[in-house]
Amino acid sequence: IPMPMRIKILATGKYLPKNRVTAADLEERLGLETGWIAKKSGVMVRHFVEGETASQMGAFAASEALHGAGLGIEDIDCLVCTSSVPEQAIPCTAALVQQQLGAGESGIPAFDLNATCLSFLCGLDTLSYLVAAGRYRRVLLIATEVTTGMNWSDKESCTLFGDGAAAVIIESSPEGERSEILAARIETYSHGAALSECRGAGNKHHPKQYFDNPEFFLFTMQGRALYRLSAQILPTFLERLLQPIQCTLEDMKMVIPHQASLMAMRLIRKHLGVREERWMTIAHNHGNTVAASIPMALHEAVVQKKIRRGDRILLLGTAAGFSVGGIVLVY
Amino acid sequence: IPMPMRIKILATGKYLPKNRVTAADLEERLGLETGWIAKKSGVMVRHFVEGETASQMGAFAASEALHGAGLGIEDIDCLVCTSSVPEQAIPCTAALVQQQLGAGESGIPAFDLNATCLSFLCGLDTLSYLVAAGRYRRVLLIATEVTTGMNWSDKESCTLFGDGAAAVIIESSPEGERSEILAARIETYSHGAALSECRGAGNKHHPKQYFDNPEFFLFTMQGRALYRLSAQILPTFLERLLQPIQCTLEDMKMVIPHQASLMAMRLIRKHLGVREERWMTIAHNHGNTVAASIPMALHEAVVQKKIRRGDRILLLGTAAGFSVGGIVLVY
Repeated sequence: IPMPMRIKILATGKYLPKNRVTAADLEERLGLETGWIAKKSGVMVRHFVEGETASQMGAFAASEALHGAGLGIEDIDCLVCTSSVPEQAIPCTAALVQQQLGAGESGIPAFDLNATCLSFLCGLDTLSYLVAAGRYRRVLLIATEVTTGMNWSDKESCTLFGDGAAAVIIESSPEGERSEILAARIETYSHGAALSECRGAGNKHHPKQYFDNPEFFLFTMQGRALYRLSAQILPTFLERLLQPIQCTLEDMKMVIPHQASLMAMRLIRKHLGVREERWMTIAHNHGNTVAASIPMALHEAVVQKKIRRGDRILLLGTAAGFSVGGIVLVY
Repeated sequence: IPMPMRIKILATGKYLPKNRVTAADLEERLGLETGWIAKKSGVMVRHFVEGETASQMGAFAASEALHGAGLGIEDIDCLVCTSSVPEQAIPCTAALVQQQLGAGESGIPAFDLNATCLSFLCGLDTLSYLVAAGRYRRVLLIATEVTTGMNWSDKESCTLFGDGAAAVIIESSPEGERSEILAARIETYSHGAALSECRGAGNKHHPKQYFDNPEFFLFTMQGRALYRLSAQILPTFLERLLQPIQCTLEDMKMVIPHQASLMAMRLIRKHLGVREERWMTIAHNHGNTVAASIPMALHEAVVQKKIRRGDRILLLGTAAGFSVGGIVLVY
């Protein structure tokens, strides 16, 4: 494995839609008793778009990252959108974000990469090779999610999610700096593909089927089966990720996990034996923002000074597919 | 630019759905006079799925490519689906293709990459860096399209398209072989994003809006404006692609263009000054199969012996976004 790769996360950005929804708001809307969400989901605050679009949110997050790096969009030479669901069927969301950034005449290549909740992690992994090889000097990765296909009658799932966007800019690590990607790995086990899915809205079930089969167009997940599969695969997956670089989980300053659900995250954390203070959690006031959740949690870890330059961290997640993915990097 | 990259296209595959639809069939269905399609679209045969899914077609095309390379799915270490529209909203189509290939327990990483009609070209470009760096030994790229959002009342567009799938396997070029990628380039100009789009079915317009706004869920394109933009950008784009490797279009044994429409392709070919015998055309009996059109045309160029090992070829296309892309490679 030709790692490590001299890649630096130059800056991060985050955007939450204006409409902030508390557990109490949602309990009222869904007719749940007071305290149900605190007890079952733990997501006390999430934001849902009202009028805002995924590409607008993505552009806001990107602008924050560009500002943080002291760069303009003209300093970016590739824009990759790593969301789970696009804004439109056609074209890709990255083009719409480019437009929202006022860069419609720029020619900056723009495309989407999708591995559901692992889209950002997979995008960072994949594009790091193009930066390392000098094809692109700086890549702007954006994950922006609007949870439009929520099943509001399934209180177990609809109380977990939130909308929002995150952005990350990468470039080659300057001489003398320690930032690098030490290892990256993704595995897909499609025997679990049906455990979390939204069957409609692609080319299998056109929206014209909506009134006959509305359930095709709603997200469904089998939480317990997903947890069991994650708990079964993650320990050996981490061996395959960490053993070649002779690391263990103990060597990580922070683990930045996908914020699937607070309950599943706590169980997985204990199963893997990671201490609570080394496990980044933002789900309680963001919800599960799907592919935006890992880069949002990374952004929060930086902002909250839980990670500093030179720290070794692990990005880790599971996704519909069923996929598992991890990246070990020196921030 | 750190090109050339020692990448070889090991094998290709193609699949067309069983349901073959002639111009006469379609004229009858659409109430068009006999000969209208021959005159206006030129697509005399296309195939449309009846019961088959995108992931099934993708798996058939992949199996042909694997057979051609003398490999099994266990010899592949990354599966990337490069279609414009997914089969389902969740998970990514690559996971569904992995499942159709009977590799659900394999762990082979599977994700989608989307640049609309340029998805395959962008996927080949992007993944070639991971193969060159040794991250993946062999990558299976699949493009599989079902044109579900067709507007059957727009005879100008619905007579152009067809369904189908193509697959390509890449690996590092063995010592002593000439296969390599000489140059690759993608540019996105999102001021043209609205010239071809399908606004619905993503997170902006959920399928429940279908009966209020069915037009949101149909593909629309402004053919003349797209042609003008292509004709304006392509000549200078080709300079930016070819000048660094000191090539001209004359050095290409074959140009394998996206099969947008026969009329647009003929005009662009003349505009660029490429001779007809060096311009691969399959639209007349395949239609525009969206992102599958370039790898299908590549497959046909190989099968019809229009290209041989050692030939220099150009993959070239435009896409909704608006994007242009090109790859120069030694086959």
